[in-house]
Parts: sequence; C-alpha cells; structure tokens
Amino acid sequence: MSFGKTAVLGVGLIGASFALAMKKRGLCGHVAGFGRKEANLLRARERGIIDSYDIDPARVASGADLVVFSLNPGAFRETAKRVAGSLKKGAVVTDVGSVKGGLVREMEDILSREAFFVGAHPIAGSEKSGIETADPDLFEAQKCIITPTDKTDGAALESLVSLWRSFGADVVTMDPYEHDRVFGAVSHLPHIVAYELMNSADEIDGSYLGYCGKGFRDLTRIASSSPELWRDICILNSDNLAAFVDTFIQRLERIREYLARADAEALEGEFRRAKSLRDGLGQD
Amino acid sequence: MSFGKTAVLGVGLIGASFALAMKKRGLCGHVAGFGRKEANLLRARERGIIDSYDIDPARVASGADLVVFSLNPGAFRETAKRVAGSLKKGAVVTDVGSVKGGLVREMEDILSREAFFVGAHPIAGSEKSGIETADPDLFEAQKCIITPTDKTDGAALESLVSLWRSFGADVVTMDPYEHDRVFGAVSHLPHIVAYELMNSADEIDGSYLGYCGKGFRDLTRIASSSPELWRDICILNSDNLAAFVDTFIQRLERIREYLARADAEALEGEFRRAKSLRDGLGQD
Repeated sequence: MSFGKTAVLGVGLIGASFALAMKKRGLCGHVAGFGRKEANLLRARERGIIDSYDIDPARVASGADLVVFSLNPGAFRETAKRVAGSLKKGAVVTDVGSVKGGLVREMEDILSREAFFVGAHPIAGSEKSGIETADPDLFEAQKCIITPTDKTDGAALESLVSLWRSFGADVVTMDPYEHDRVFGAVSHLPHIVAYELMNSADEIDGSYLGYCGKGFRDLTRIASSSPELWRDICILNSDNLAAFVDTFIQRLERIREYLARADAEALEGEFRRAKSLRDGLGQD
Repeated sequence: MSFGKTAVLGVGLIGASFALAMKKRGLCGHVAGFGRKEANLLRARERGIIDSYDIDPARVASGADLVVFSLNPGAFRETAKRVAGSLKKGAVVTDVGSVKGGLVREMEDILSREAFFVGAHPIAGSEKSGIETADPDLFEAQKCIITPTDKTDGAALESLVSLWRSFGADVVTMDPYEHDRVFGAVSHLPHIVAYELMNSADEIDGSYLGYCGKGFRDLTRIASSSPELWRDICILNSDNLAAFVDTFIQRLERIREYLARADAEALEGEFRRAKSLRDGLGQD
C-alpha cells in the first residue's frame, strides 16, 4: 500500500506527525497541506513536513489518493463539504480525530459519492500542540482505533489498516458509537475533570496554587490542552459526556456524605477499590 | 543543631527518608524506629535506616532529643498519649503529616508537659509508599511547611527550621488552619478526584480501562496512594474538604448544563480559563 499525493487537512501535531510518518516510510509521493494560518503552513513546508500548501482545502484535496482530516473535529463537516466536489474517484478519506459516532455517518454521507471514508483515531498526542513537537514515530506502539461501518469499502479499510500498521501502531477496529463511549470515559471525561479541578482550585483561592506538588501537576497537566479542540470534542460527544459527568458527580456526592458524617470506613472502601483498579493498570 | 537520639514513629517512605536525611548529614547519634510491623522494622534496621526498633512507641521515644511522628495521622493522638509520659524533658516533637489544623492543638495539649511540639509537612512523597523508595535527598528543593502556633517554643521552632533547611528544603511557616485549607485545595481534593475518576470509569464500563492513555494515567496516578493514609487525611480535614468537593461539584454541574444545551462558547471559556491557569504553573 502506497499513495501518490496525500492531502493533510490541518497541520498540527497529529497532522504533521502523520505526514512525517508517511515520508519516513516512503509511502507517498507528495504531501499537500491545508490550514487556516499561512505562517504555520509555510513553516511546515520549510521543515519538510509538507511539500506544498494552500488555504483552500479543495485545491489541496484535489487529485489526492489519500485525504486526512486532522483539523479540530468541529470543522470536519464544513471542510468535507468544501472538498467533496474535488475528490479523485476512489480516493481514501480518513481522519485522526477523537470523536467518531454520528460524525462518521455524516462524513460518509458528504463524501461517499466519489471517495471512501474510513474513520481512524490514533491514541497519541498530549497536552502539547503544533508542529514543533511533530514526530514520525509518534504512533509507534500506540493503539489506533479504526471505526468501520456497514457502508465502509473493504479495500479502503484494508489499505488504512496496513498504513497504520506500517507506522507501528496497534490497530483495533471498533463501532463508531462504542468508540465514543470508550473514549468519553477514559479521555473526554478526564479532560473535563482536569479543566474543572484547575478552575476549582483557583475559585477556592488562586494563591494556593503556589503550593501545588507533583500530584496536582499530574492531574491538571491535560488542562493545558487546546480549548478549541476540547470544546469540539465535548460538543460532538455531549450525550455520552453528560451521562458520564452525572456518574462522576453522583460518586462525589457520596464522598461528600461520607465526609459530612466522618465515615472513615466508607471512605477507605472507596479509596481501596480505586487503588486496586489503578494498580491493575500497571506502571507507566 | 544536632540531636543525640532521634525517634522515628512510623517507618514508611517519609519516616525512613527523614532518618536517612539525618544520618547522611551526621545530625544525630542514634535512630530508633517504632512501627506496627516488626518485619518492616527489621528490614529498615538491616538497611541501616534505623539503628534499633521496638513495637512499643514509649520505649522508642524514651530519652530521645527529637521525636518524629511519621505514622498515618489518624494514629497521632493515641500514639502521643502512649509516649507522653516517657519523653525527655525539653525534647522536640514534630511530625511529617499532611494535616495540621486542630490536630496541632491536640498534639500540643497531649505532649506539652515535658516536650515542645512543632508541626511540619514536607511536600514530598508520591503514590509510592514503604522504605524501598526511601531517599536521604527526598526533601531537597521541596517545600516544607512548618506550622507554629502562639504556644510554640521559639528555640524548638528555630532548631526544626534549621533541620529542614539542612535537608535542602525550602521552609515556609504557615498557620495550621490555613495549611489545611491550602493543602485541602491543592492536594487532598485532587486525591479524592483521582480516586473517584478511577471508580467512575470502572462504573461506566471496566472493560474501557484497556483503552486508557497517558492523560488518564496521569490523572489517576495518585489513586494508587495508601487508602488508610488518605482516609485519615480526609477525616481530619473533612470540613474543608466537604466545602471544596461542593465547589468542584457545582463547577461540574455547570459543565453538565453546557453539555446539555451544546453551549460551545461557554465550554471553550471554561477550558480557556483552566488552560491559562495551568500554563501559569509552568512545565514540570
């Protein structure tokens, strides 16, 4: 599996790392980049991450064998509509976003006249963003979730699975709606928690932040993540997240009760259960 | 400042590191250890962390110039009562616990007939516990909060400040009640959050934990901390923590509302504010 022209729509940490991963393995002839900020695109070209760029996504996607959506997912639909008429017949279109669910169906509906859409979500990246930390081996030994549907083209799916395997990723296929429940629980909810723990500490007394130690820093590290990206993810997965925030609030309300009645045994039981689960995840 | 006999009541990570820190700097003649588990005390003696041990705290504290409470703080009062009659006149008694507030007054009341109590809280340690990770330089370049009251003996305070400075710690003095508000916000609340995020993810679906990435691991790392220790800390600081859990729940309820009405702008505002605060803490 190899692609002639690859279009990377959104040249941030993940888009740039994807481009570098393809180039390092000789899997494409030309990488064209689209983005909103020309200065960033220029820097990406100067660093050899992309070979050409344009601020019109249709021109970038035109003639590409592979088109990768690596924008904030809130911009997927509009951008898909802009490129749909310019896609090469038989092109494989994919993404690297953190939300799937109904968005996959919408992308299929917008794009499927000429091209084949297959959703993908590499479990990589961090609170950092931007091309400065782009890395051709970012996906190595990391999971990549691919979310086919009953409409997915078999050959397009197969070439995408091969591509991610060639990046060293551990490919897992999953239903798009199940994907959003899983990552709602282990990634999206934790981001909300980190953001609001940070805001709560400041609400209690901002001057206390000078005394925070390693634990607080670990818990709030992902609160440095992009607000626009996490706004998009939360909105697109809002049904699951509303339910999961409820689950979390209910558990905290129980703790609130234990504190109010100084129930040492109940608190210890909660903490013991959590420790056993966390120890089960192993060291990092 | 130097001490003849030092009694370490509770030989875990912090107690053992304290003993090693004193020995490395030649600040004491003999370190006696008390603990509930004889096997642990024996191992500590074999590794040269302590010179002698006993499962009777009064015998360990007897004749000591410096007595350090490094037990779980829920055991402070009972142990203080057991050692009070055996203390050398003029001994300095201190602790390394994460809760101060009213506990400092109680310790003063129990111990002050013969000895001088001064509370201390080195900001060190982690989710790990036990003597295996003990380190004579654990406190270097870390804050150590010392919490004098209007009853505190000036000379005892001065020698304790010197001791912690000789360990390389950055000594800060603080009112004991203020201490519990500060660390309630930046340490105790985050532990509750980590424990309950872990339990929530499991409640949603335990099988999802197989997909957790670096963010989730960072957030829940301190859920591996000792349940007995954190039970004690939460009970002793329950008034502050009940209020802080309320603050946190209220913020989450607001997020729940934003999710329900898909208010992208409000979510972005919350996340942007948190990011700015977290970025302000700097890299680790």
